[in-house]
Amino acid sequence: MKILIVYAHPEASSFNHALKEQAVNVLKNASHEIKLSDLYAIHFNPVAGWDDFKEIDSTLPHQYGVVQRDAYLKNLLSDDIKREQEKLSWCDAVIFQFPLWWFGLPAILKGWFDRLFATAYAYDKDKMFSAGLLQPIQAMLSVTTQSPSSTYQADGRHGDMNQYLHPIHHTLRFAGIKILQPFVAYGVMNITDVERKQYLVSYEKHLSEQF
Amino acid sequence: MKILIVYAHPEASSFNHALKEQAVNVLKNASHEIKLSDLYAIHFNPVAGWDDFKEIDSTLPHQYGVVQRDAYLKNLLSDDIKREQEKLSWCDAVIFQFPLWWFGLPAILKGWFDRLFATAYAYDKDKMFSAGLLQPIQAMLSVTTQSPSSTYQADGRHGDMNQYLHPIHHTLRFAGIKILQPFVAYGVMNITDVERKQYLVSYEKHLSEQF
Repeated sequence: MKILIVYAHPEASSFNHALKEQAVNVLKNASHEIKLSDLYAIHFNPVAGWDDFKEIDSTLPHQYGVVQRDAYLKNLLSDDIKREQEKLSWCDAVIFQFPLWWFGLPAILKGWFDRLFATAYAYDKDKMFSAGLLQPIQAMLSVTTQSPSSTYQADGRHGDMNQYLHPIHHTLRFAGIKILQPFVAYGVMNITDVERKQYLVSYEKHLSEQF
Repeated sequence: MKILIVYAHPEASSFNHALKEQAVNVLKNASHEIKLSDLYAIHFNPVAGWDDFKEIDSTLPHQYGVVQRDAYLKNLLSDDIKREQEKLSWCDAVIFQFPLWWFGLPAILKGWFDRLFATAYAYDKDKMFSAGLLQPIQAMLSVTTQSPSSTYQADGRHGDMNQYLHPIHHTLRFAGIKILQPFVAYGVMNITDVERKQYLVSYEKHLSEQF
């Protein structure tokens, strides 16, 4: 398979980085073809705005979504957006590797969705969910948390983890992307080296099962 | 009351802009004191990273959250973060005015949380939820959507709106902030001028009830 890894963490000594490296190695060894979007390394701009378009048709309503659709269809999206869209369209599956910050995506990755998922590219009128334009891409979230797993149980401090993954999964499903089983490594800032190794072994097994 | 409006939309002709203006006018008329953080206007950088710190204590583990806590306590956070923290600490209540993009915050606003909500500033060990450090601040979300309200019902395409507000409300509650009733304007890109006016009148009533 062709697999894109979208990686959103600023630090090479992080466990996110270790998980990303593990995915690259495990998947390459299984003869998958890998591309990487290291959003911090490429200084990805996550702020959707009028600079996202090389030209703006002044007869259109001045609404970001409307102009974005038009620009996509006329090949007028900015080059950084086009490069990321091309990588996504190339792949059979995408892995999102990120830390759960404030119960959601880091801003640099949230903006990847805001800027890439244009109407006419990711979905359109009557082309969503099972008719979404990004099918047959599959997606897998690989997430780390600061809090331990007990806090993400139904009776824990934060409640069920699925509450926080749902908006991301729903975004992907809306565009026709099939959701694979997520991998969550809990409490990674306070675990021992042995526990880190155990997580990396679990992740290898998880990847082999998903791909 | 002292009220901060954090506004995240790139376009002055948007309904988000109209709602922000309505809040400013209604609340000023009711003798509240208002400050505004117009995140697009100030080109707020939402990407949490090592540039957020004026100095980094090299004896600390190279983890963003750890360095962020230390930098907050030593007054070494970057000036843009400090300015926003000062505005938040000044207020009795904060209104977040934003469009729901991909079932969550626009990246520019997500990063406001990622970069501002440092340990020791917003929360700390044993200082969360009812002991959170940002109490007694109150917060209200004012959200617009592209899809009509029927799609955000339990049996609608996206399911209950609260699923998407929950991660944001949970972030606020975690820091000790009290949640006020949110205001949601649905389908704002396709409504008539009459419906826009009705929403603005409803918003005025909503604001009067909350503040």
